[in-house]
Amino acid sequence: MERRRDPLTGQWRVFAGHRQDRTFLPPPDQCPLCPTRPGGLVTEIHKPSFDIAVFDNRFPSLVASPPPPSVAGTDLYAVAPAAGACEVVVYSDDHEATFAGLGRERTRLVIDTWAERYTALGARPEVAYVFIFENKGEEIGVTLSHPHGQIYGYPEIPPIPRLELEAAAAAGRCVLCDVVAAEVADDQRAVTGNDSFVAFVPFAPRFPYEVHIASRVHRPSLVDLDDGERDDLAGVLETVTRTYDLLWGFSLPYVMAVHQAPTDGGDWSAASHLHVEFTPIHRSATKLKYLAGSELGAGAFISDVAPEQAAAELRARRP
Amino acid sequence: MERRRDPLTGQWRVFAGHRQDRTFLPPPDQCPLCPTRPGGLVTEIHKPSFDIAVFDNRFPSLVASPPPPSVAGTDLYAVAPAAGACEVVVYSDDHEATFAGLGRERTRLVIDTWAERYTALGARPEVAYVFIFENKGEEIGVTLSHPHGQIYGYPEIPPIPRLELEAAAAAGRCVLCDVVAAEVADDQRAVTGNDSFVAFVPFAPRFPYEVHIASRVHRPSLVDLDDGERDDLAGVLETVTRTYDLLWGFSLPYVMAVHQAPTDGGDWSAASHLHVEFTPIHRSATKLKYLAGSELGAGAFISDVAPEQAAAELRARRP
Repeated sequence: MERRRDPLTGQWRVFAGHRQDRTFLPPPDQCPLCPTRPGGLVTEIHKPSFDIAVFDNRFPSLVASPPPPSVAGTDLYAVAPAAGACEVVVYSDDHEATFAGLGRERTRLVIDTWAERYTALGARPEVAYVFIFENKGEEIGVTLSHPHGQIYGYPEIPPIPRLELEAAAAAGRCVLCDVVAAEVADDQRAVTGNDSFVAFVPFAPRFPYEVHIASRVHRPSLVDLDDGERDDLAGVLETVTRTYDLLWGFSLPYVMAVHQAPTDGGDWSAASHLHVEFTPIHRSATKLKYLAGSELGAGAFISDVAPEQAAAELRARRP
Repeated sequence: MERRRDPLTGQWRVFAGHRQDRTFLPPPDQCPLCPTRPGGLVTEIHKPSFDIAVFDNRFPSLVASPPPPSVAGTDLYAVAPAAGACEVVVYSDDHEATFAGLGRERTRLVIDTWAERYTALGARPEVAYVFIFENKGEEIGVTLSHPHGQIYGYPEIPPIPRLELEAAAAAGRCVLCDVVAAEVADDQRAVTGNDSFVAFVPFAPRFPYEVHIASRVHRPSLVDLDDGERDDLAGVLETVTRTYDLLWGFSLPYVMAVHQAPTDGGDWSAASHLHVEFTPIHRSATKLKYLAGSELGAGAFISDVAPEQAAAELRARRP
C-alpha cells in the first residue's frame, strides 16, 4: 500500500490492495459493528452494548506506521507511504438505526466525538487534514449497513478542501461568510436553520438535492463551537437528515462530508469556515444522478434540477 | 437553463431542468438513435440506414443560442448563459453494436468524424473546449443503449483538462511526453500499442482498470494526426475496448474521454498532448468502484487494485 501522485493532475491517490477483500454486506448476524453479545459473534466492539464506538478501520487506506511503498518513485512519478489514519465511528449499537433517527442527545454525542477525534488525529504529525464523513446507502457503495461514519486523517490537504481554501485565499476573505450572508438575505434556497447554523441548497451544487450546513458566525472547526452551538448543529443535522428521509418516503442515501480547518500546522483560522456538505445521489425518487462523461472525464457537473426548486421541495417535507 | 459558478471551488456548473424528462432506456423499437425505417418510428435520423450520424442532442445542456439565465448573478454568485454545443455521434445503425465491435474501418470513420467536429465546433466563438466522450453501460447511467458517443462544446476549459494544462505550465514542459517515455521505458503498466500510440494503465489512476491511450509523438489534437496515425489510433481503440470486454467476459461499462487542445484562441500546442482516457467503474468482475466520501467529499481517490496488477490482467486478455 502506498500513495502515488498523478503527474497529469498533481493529485495524490491511495493504493491499498488488501481492501479488495474487505467485508462486503454481511448478513445482520455477521455484522462486525454490532456489539459482542454473549454467545454471539465476536465483533469489532467487545462490549454487550454501547453508545458510540470509535476504532481503527480494519481495512484502512492510511495508517500511522505504513509499510514502505511497493514501487520506487521518480521525479515524474512521486510515491509516498500511506501515512495517516482511518477510523470508524459507530453511531449506535442498534443495527437498524440511522443518523436521522439517533435523536438530539446522541447526535450531540456524535458531534462531541468528532471534535475529540479532530483534536486527537490532528495532533499527529502525519495528519494534515482530518476528514469526517458518512457514506449511507447501498447506492453509495456502503459495505456495512450498521449506522456508522468514518474519519480519515490525510497526510496532505485533499483536493476539494484545497480548492475551497484557495478560493478564500484568492478572494482575500472567507467565501463561506459571504455565502451565509447571501443565503440569509435571500432565503429561496433555505432548507432549515437555527440561531447558530443555516442549511441551504447551494447556489451551484454538484448534486441536485445537495444541502450545505454552515455556521452563521465564522468558526474554523468543530472545536471552536461552544456548547450551545454544538446543540444547534445537532438540531440542524437531525432536521436535514429527517427531511431527506421524508422527501420521497425512503431512507435517502448520501455522502455527508465535514469540511473544517487543516491540521498541518498552518494558520487556517481566517480561511476555513466549518460546514457540512450532504450529497445525495438521487435526481428524483426513482433516478440516480450518475457521474458520467462530463463529470468524470471533464470534471464539469450538469444538473437537471434548479437549486431553488430542490430547496422548495425539501422545505415542504421538513418534519 | 444557465451556467452558475460555485463560489467555494470556482467551478462552473450547468443547470438544465428540461433534461430531467429526457428519454430513459426506451424499448428497442422506440430507440431514437435507430434509422427511420419505412412504416416504423420516425427517429432522430431520417434515413433507412447510415454509417455514422451526427446531430444536436435533443436534450442539450449547452446550446449555441442559450436563453437568458433564470436567475440574476452577483459578485459572489456568477451566472452565465448555457452557451456551447451538445452533439450526439451515433456509431452505427445497428442497435446491438458496440464501439469494440465496429471494426477498424468504421472506427477510423468515427475518428475522422471526431476530428471534423473538433474543427467545426472549435471554430465557434462560444466554444472554448471541444470534449469528445462516450458513456457506455447502464451502470454508467446511459439512457440510450444504441451505440453512440457525445461531443460537448464547453464555453470554458473544464476542470480536469484545466488541471492537466496547469500541470504542464508548472512543469514548463509536456507532462504527457514524459509519461509516454516512462511507460515505454518500463512496460509493466503497458496494455497495448503500435507505431503511433501506447495504451497503459496510468501510474496513479482514479479507477482500478483505467487505461490511457497517448500518441507517442507530441500531437495537440486529433486534427494533428496524419492518415497513418489515425489508422493506428483506430487500432489501439479497438484493441483496448475488445480487451475490456474479454477481461471478465461481459461488455464492460466505461466512460471514454478524449483530451486535446482547447479551442479558446490560446496557443496550447506545446502544453496539450492528445490522449484518450478510459475509466471503467468496475473494481472486479462483480463489484463497482463507487465514489463515496473520500472521492466525492474530499476529492481523494482510493483504489483497491495495484495499477501494475490491473495492467497484467488486461494484457493477459488481449485479443
